[in-house]
Amino acid sequence: MTIQSYLDIAEKKRCLRDTKFKKEWLIPEDELPGSDVKDVLSWPIECGFLSSREIEITESDLPSIAKQIQSKTWSAFEVTSAYCHRASIAHQLVNCLSEVFFEEGLARAKELDDIYEKTGKLVGPLHGLPISLKDNLNVKGQATTIGFVGFAFNPEEFNEDSCLVSLLRNAGAVFSFKTNVPVAMMMPESTNYIFGNTSNPFNRNLTSGGSSGGECALGALLGRCYCGIGSDIGGSLRIPASMQNLFTLRPSSGRFPTLGSRSGLPGLESVASVNGPISTTLTSLELYCKTVVNEGKPWLTDPKCLELPWREVELPEKLIFAVLKDDGVVKPYPAISRAVDMTVKSLKEAGHEVIEWNPLHHKRLTDIVGEFFLSDGGKHCKEYANLTGEPFFPYMKMYNTAKEMSVSALWDLHSERTKLCKEYLEQWNSTASKTACNRPIDAIVMPVSPYSGVGIGKFTYIGYTAVFNALDWAAGTIPVTRADKSCDVKDTLYKPRNDADKLTYDLFDAEEVDGGAAAVQIVCKKLQEEKLVSIMKVVSKTLGTESYWDRKL
Amino acid sequence: MTIQSYLDIAEKKRCLRDTKFKKEWLIPEDELPGSDVKDVLSWPIECGFLSSREIEITESDLPSIAKQIQSKTWSAFEVTSAYCHRASIAHQLVNCLSEVFFEEGLARAKELDDIYEKTGKLVGPLHGLPISLKDNLNVKGQATTIGFVGFAFNPEEFNEDSCLVSLLRNAGAVFSFKTNVPVAMMMPESTNYIFGNTSNPFNRNLTSGGSSGGECALGALLGRCYCGIGSDIGGSLRIPASMQNLFTLRPSSGRFPTLGSRSGLPGLESVASVNGPISTTLTSLELYCKTVVNEGKPWLTDPKCLELPWREVELPEKLIFAVLKDDGVVKPYPAISRAVDMTVKSLKEAGHEVIEWNPLHHKRLTDIVGEFFLSDGGKHCKEYANLTGEPFFPYMKMYNTAKEMSVSALWDLHSERTKLCKEYLEQWNSTASKTACNRPIDAIVMPVSPYSGVGIGKFTYIGYTAVFNALDWAAGTIPVTRADKSCDVKDTLYKPRNDADKLTYDLFDAEEVDGGAAAVQIVCKKLQEEKLVSIMKVVSKTLGTESYWDRKL
Repeated sequence: MTIQSYLDIAEKKRCLRDTKFKKEWLIPEDELPGSDVKDVLSWPIECGFLSSREIEITESDLPSIAKQIQSKTWSAFEVTSAYCHRASIAHQLVNCLSEVFFEEGLARAKELDDIYEKTGKLVGPLHGLPISLKDNLNVKGQATTIGFVGFAFNPEEFNEDSCLVSLLRNAGAVFSFKTNVPVAMMMPESTNYIFGNTSNPFNRNLTSGGSSGGECALGALLGRCYCGIGSDIGGSLRIPASMQNLFTLRPSSGRFPTLGSRSGLPGLESVASVNGPISTTLTSLELYCKTVVNEGKPWLTDPKCLELPWREVELPEKLIFAVLKDDGVVKPYPAISRAVDMTVKSLKEAGHEVIEWNPLHHKRLTDIVGEFFLSDGGKHCKEYANLTGEPFFPYMKMYNTAKEMSVSALWDLHSERTKLCKEYLEQWNSTASKTACNRPIDAIVMPVSPYSGVGIGKFTYIGYTAVFNALDWAAGTIPVTRADKSCDVKDTLYKPRNDADKLTYDLFDAEEVDGGAAAVQIVCKKLQEEKLVSIMKVVSKTLGTESYWDRKL
Repeated sequence: MTIQSYLDIAEKKRCLRDTKFKKEWLIPEDELPGSDVKDVLSWPIECGFLSSREIEITESDLPSIAKQIQSKTWSAFEVTSAYCHRASIAHQLVNCLSEVFFEEGLARAKELDDIYEKTGKLVGPLHGLPISLKDNLNVKGQATTIGFVGFAFNPEEFNEDSCLVSLLRNAGAVFSFKTNVPVAMMMPESTNYIFGNTSNPFNRNLTSGGSSGGECALGALLGRCYCGIGSDIGGSLRIPASMQNLFTLRPSSGRFPTLGSRSGLPGLESVASVNGPISTTLTSLELYCKTVVNEGKPWLTDPKCLELPWREVELPEKLIFAVLKDDGVVKPYPAISRAVDMTVKSLKEAGHEVIEWNPLHHKRLTDIVGEFFLSDGGKHCKEYANLTGEPFFPYMKMYNTAKEMSVSALWDLHSERTKLCKEYLEQWNSTASKTACNRPIDAIVMPVSPYSGVGIGKFTYIGYTAVFNALDWAAGTIPVTRADKSCDVKDTLYKPRNDADKLTYDLFDAEEVDGGAAAVQIVCKKLQEEKLVSIMKVVSKTLGTESYWDRKL
């Protein structure tokens, strides 16, 4: 018996995955854009490999596709086919797919068409709609690698749909692939030994971010039909969404089901991993939320879900925002500061009120989240890596060296976290004394990360997102603009305030990140997902980026 | 400097507490019932020390008292005075009070009367209503000992009202004392070195239970005006409530605020300590719930609370129950089995459906809860005991000997618990196939513990309650009947199934527990508190125990 190295196993898996692509959709290497072509956002619809009908379908949001399927203008099969074709092209551009099961998706779409034909009834509100899945969601018959080579061939153990997948399937959604993630989903770049790195279609020299990087790179290339599911325990939805200028919602824990999702840190409950939608449109994102919660009633199947419907909200005409421009730890890149300023300016011009936000305890809460991640001394990650002997990536090295925390120390850390969360909540309440009408703010507007795109290996700071994982608050992202080397230049007079700040400042290169996405984060309180989505609509409409992904066809 | 022993400190504290009673309310020792008088339930209203007006007040539920205060028939001061007078008598009978601050309560009542007089407005829905507090709730200016001698004189550190106390105070509630608990609130009998043991007014040879035993012993003697707050992490509301035939609600975590409550296991989050109301009437209990949630909006002040109003529920006319008579581990005492049978019989006679419930994973989930309690290796409890060198009670000895769990093992235990909770939820869903109308059950009816009252040191099994702490489901208790030595006799043919069963069986003594309370537990799913309270109303009305605490005056 030959002992296979982790690289052998990874290659075997990758080769198997590659057999799942449809040959007629694969574009010859020499017809693909060269590595010198950094921005490939428009390539799928300009390359000539998609039919105008395929473009029309994939440039429609989910509610529109649903209408066309209902009216039998499009069949679910035709939609799935167009979707998979475009996803196949996207993959050739940025290496975003991990498991590929186009045939299963097309077969299910055909089955849905037959049901509709025979019964005259749609199976649910997502009948025939394609939903993309991050690799951590178990799907019957497919592997869930979460980037570990040791999991490349283990479908048996995870051979049931996760709770969320099952619920969406029952609502009519069609799944045809899963998307790439970093090892254990604990790195800010989506790379692993099996599938390699997913690059950023805004600028292929930049990372797609992580851990939902496969999703977001794909999403930016799929057009308006894109709606996928990622997960977030420290920023894993928001960071890649911001790096691809997508809409996402990181919900509070208990809104969307997580049962049957695989984790690199299984059983960690001190900070909850949640999943949420990512999309090129807020219409698709909202359809997803309503369907999962109100149709899916996930509290009936996931013991951690809250029996809480997706509620209608009525916003005040004039909203009150607090803006956080800099968390005092790591200064954002120029394009991010510009994106925040643009947002504030447009909100003020539209008559909304904007006050300043103090980043209370952001550093400590971020550090605490990091301590929670490592509290098992990296034991679970080491166990999974040791299945094949795969080495740790530099971003993950602390999981190999961490010392296991004692449970009593963990309890004390919980107590400290709760105290800081209380003070944060009080700060929110106290804004009532600073606003024109004496009510507290409705939301915070701030960066998602310091980076308007970032080169490989240069992502070093998650403080702008992780704080809201500690708080378990609802937070989303909306697109604003793109980095522009002609105006987003280094402030040569800036004096970094600490090592983390210096690292980020020193590594900034306006030329390198040119064209990178620049989004902003909108934050509401715990379980205010509906309010947050409504506010994201207002802000993106005010900014004019509600239609950021619309294309003239 | 003399080093004080823990007994010296405890005595000093007890003596200080005793100075807080009003001399004119204290009954001379020789006029109190002798230790041979076991049942003292009626003593407060029959002893002649309370005026008929004081009896009238204390035999009114909270909504009635509120009306009388609003109409100025009674002043808040008069209500507080009657309440404290009766509580003082209760204390002399069963030793239920820990911190005593009648003067503060009376002063606040006077202040509320003045406000009402001057403004014509009540400060809130609880204006002038007395609410009793378990000793774990921090109250400005009072100690929170949670039974540790080392905390007997530490008001400074905890010198703010807990979130819940503050919210109730704002709604008009009046606080005049706190009630006794077991050390760390981790024993099923309310005893500690400072205040000693709280006995059971149904039969003073029996324990009041724990950990909310001070509350429940008091409640049974206070009459219909009683509404107090206890906490529950393994059964600490339901066990003492059942041993005093009271109504209680153990809510799911996040419904009522816990911030600023003291714990013997601070920072433990694997199983949540929650607090909830205990009362002699469901009318008071419901007023409490509505006020705390809808008026108090605790999500604005406690970061762990859910933004979820107290909702109106409409029950189906015919309810479906599952009954669990025996969990397969420890067989209940005869009076408990009789109480469950009485409940089932009355429900069936009223036209409700009753099917059988399988105690799926009850033993393992109970064991897991026990492992969570001890996961810090008893470090926090040892630290608190070591402040004065107080020894551990036999019930607590495992906190002195436990080995600290590793965080990685804790994560694995979380994963196991979640898997078992999923299977439990699926079992609930699967009842749809067994009921007449093919919908799942509405609630489970079952014992609260094996014991219809229990002698000191004989409480050995919390499996009937702890399983719902693991699940975080809503569970309540309602009174049914009392143990009767003439019919609740030992089944001499019974063969115990295991050591725990044998221990409970062997220690049962029909004579000893004669007159003990026999309640039942009603269980709904997570966050179904409103539905549970509505069902508790239906069941107690059907049983005729809705008015269990009504007395002919």
